[in-house]
Amino acid sequence: MSSENANKGEDCLGWAARDESGVLSPYKFARRAVGSDDVSIKITHCGVCYAEVVWTKNKHGDATYPLVPGHEIAGIVQEVGSNVRGFKVGDHVGVGTYINSCRNCDYCNDGLEVYCEKGVVYTYNRLDVDGTMTKGGFSTYIVVCERYCFRIAESYPLASAAPLLCAGITVYSPMIRHKMNQPGKSLGVIGLGGLGHLAVKFGKAFGLNVTVFSTSTSKKEESLTLLGADNFVVSSDQEQMKAMAKSLDFIIDTVSADHSFDMYMLLLKTAGVFVMVGAPNEVKLSPMSLILGMKSISGSVAGGTKEMQEMLDFCAAQKIYPNIEIVPIQYVNEAIERLIKKDVKYRFVVDIENSLKY
Amino acid sequence: MSSENANKGEDCLGWAARDESGVLSPYKFARRAVGSDDVSIKITHCGVCYAEVVWTKNKHGDATYPLVPGHEIAGIVQEVGSNVRGFKVGDHVGVGTYINSCRNCDYCNDGLEVYCEKGVVYTYNRLDVDGTMTKGGFSTYIVVCERYCFRIAESYPLASAAPLLCAGITVYSPMIRHKMNQPGKSLGVIGLGGLGHLAVKFGKAFGLNVTVFSTSTSKKEESLTLLGADNFVVSSDQEQMKAMAKSLDFIIDTVSADHSFDMYMLLLKTAGVFVMVGAPNEVKLSPMSLILGMKSISGSVAGGTKEMQEMLDFCAAQKIYPNIEIVPIQYVNEAIERLIKKDVKYRFVVDIENSLKY
Repeated sequence: MSSENANKGEDCLGWAARDESGVLSPYKFARRAVGSDDVSIKITHCGVCYAEVVWTKNKHGDATYPLVPGHEIAGIVQEVGSNVRGFKVGDHVGVGTYINSCRNCDYCNDGLEVYCEKGVVYTYNRLDVDGTMTKGGFSTYIVVCERYCFRIAESYPLASAAPLLCAGITVYSPMIRHKMNQPGKSLGVIGLGGLGHLAVKFGKAFGLNVTVFSTSTSKKEESLTLLGADNFVVSSDQEQMKAMAKSLDFIIDTVSADHSFDMYMLLLKTAGVFVMVGAPNEVKLSPMSLILGMKSISGSVAGGTKEMQEMLDFCAAQKIYPNIEIVPIQYVNEAIERLIKKDVKYRFVVDIENSLKY
Repeated sequence: MSSENANKGEDCLGWAARDESGVLSPYKFARRAVGSDDVSIKITHCGVCYAEVVWTKNKHGDATYPLVPGHEIAGIVQEVGSNVRGFKVGDHVGVGTYINSCRNCDYCNDGLEVYCEKGVVYTYNRLDVDGTMTKGGFSTYIVVCERYCFRIAESYPLASAAPLLCAGITVYSPMIRHKMNQPGKSLGVIGLGGLGHLAVKFGKAFGLNVTVFSTSTSKKEESLTLLGADNFVVSSDQEQMKAMAKSLDFIIDTVSADHSFDMYMLLLKTAGVFVMVGAPNEVKLSPMSLILGMKSISGSVAGGTKEMQEMLDFCAAQKIYPNIEIVPIQYVNEAIERLIKKDVKYRFVVDIENSLKY
């Protein structure tokens, strides 16, 4: 801890997991002092991503406790460093899944920092420049280099902006990269959670014909009416699946549970592209699923700073809003348990501003 | 059989498999009469592809005997139909893996007939327009619609041209599609058979840095000196593999035996592309192999008529020649057995003109 931090004291209040139970509880800690390139952000909202399940419960075996999660951060600039040019006090801003990178490799130079050759520094549970572990958005404020901070339009609700910072960019980035924004083309979306429901909304904004694939009929009505999808298919219904054969230009797969890939590859047209953003245990398919129609299966993780800003601006201009359930921080443990049970439509957002107080 | 064929009689001499032993022996049959859009080609050479193993031995369960294989056909035009504009008697030409398609779908209209929506008609063992089964290039002549026939430069040896019609186009097409022709980029080639050795030659002609991956060191010397590859890696050598981590822009995989995919995906740079043209039993890999570096795995089969002509012209202009072992038709059964044992450098070509006679 730097002397400045020591002087400032543990003035940041967060909620932290203390062990592999993953249960979050109040936790006071120090943030680093605002450096010349930094902005300090008063956090108003933070989305609840499945990453919160993974890291608070130490599913990857790399959790360092106490662990303050949260990487869908929206808030208001409260202080800026002397070199900061992009932001001023009072600006609405967001922070996503990473808060640093080498800033020197080809990917950083191309605005694709998430693929930094030396690896990005995640927003929580990673070593920060000051030697402390990074701590996420379930906290009253955060200090971040302006490069990893994004403008949110004044007109765009901060609560709605929060899920865009991870769920939004995770589907937006591969959709743009794989040209899923060409009007008139057909898109399949597998899974209708935080990511999937945004893929549907982006797809419609791009002018695509969108089909939602789900394991049950329970989401049919809202897919078609609330989210504006064109078709809804129950993936276990072989007749419905057969009727979709060779009809899709793209599929975006947001599901982390294991499932068949071959049955979806059959639905792609020749040269079709299947993009995974979920993470099942393995990908297993017949080579013929790729070879016979020169099809591709690809993956993607979050996105770079350039496309992040583009996506936030696009959502403001197109009035695309995630469907959210706003909850107080005191509800966050229950929210995480409900998220595990997929009992959320479609993203929890913690109202930090109004519920996280001394 | 049409009356014209009946009149012409069984004037075509081929070698056919008669049963699942796959053993080929002389067989006389009729070709259809030359239609207005057809050319009749005196076959001089025909390459021996692994497809000859698959279909003569009925590995796919769809063989109709007698079965005359061969779909890497080179020869000289001996007759043209009244509407034929692209060819005249005496022209050097080739025929590849298919001899018809619907000619009306988006893929046919784009010169990508191999992906015809109604399915292409393969050069052998498929129903032809006259109701007979198509018969391949291990025969004295063939009658084909000019659309499925390709110009071979006078300067280019017909024997060398034969392997381009399947092996060549199978690697050329995905290399072009996935932009593996950008000078300075790095290409990995897995497997050094008929397809792989041509991928190396194309890669060098495109100005790439080419690394060959093989299961044994036996092909190292020729990879580097004879074929001009820049590097050679024994895929079972973990140190060598580790040294290649994140170094390749593309990988083309020509291997049909089962093998690990994850270990190769680690060698790709961010956004790297792995293209399969072989056909192992299954593709199995970790989602992280795709997700963490937005990598893709894709497949491809042969190519369309447009790119086939382009590839043949490119090989003539660049003086790219397959390495071949020319054998008489009387040796074809032994050649097929040697092909199964991978005992060929790198493609057998049957000298039809000088060995297949009454």
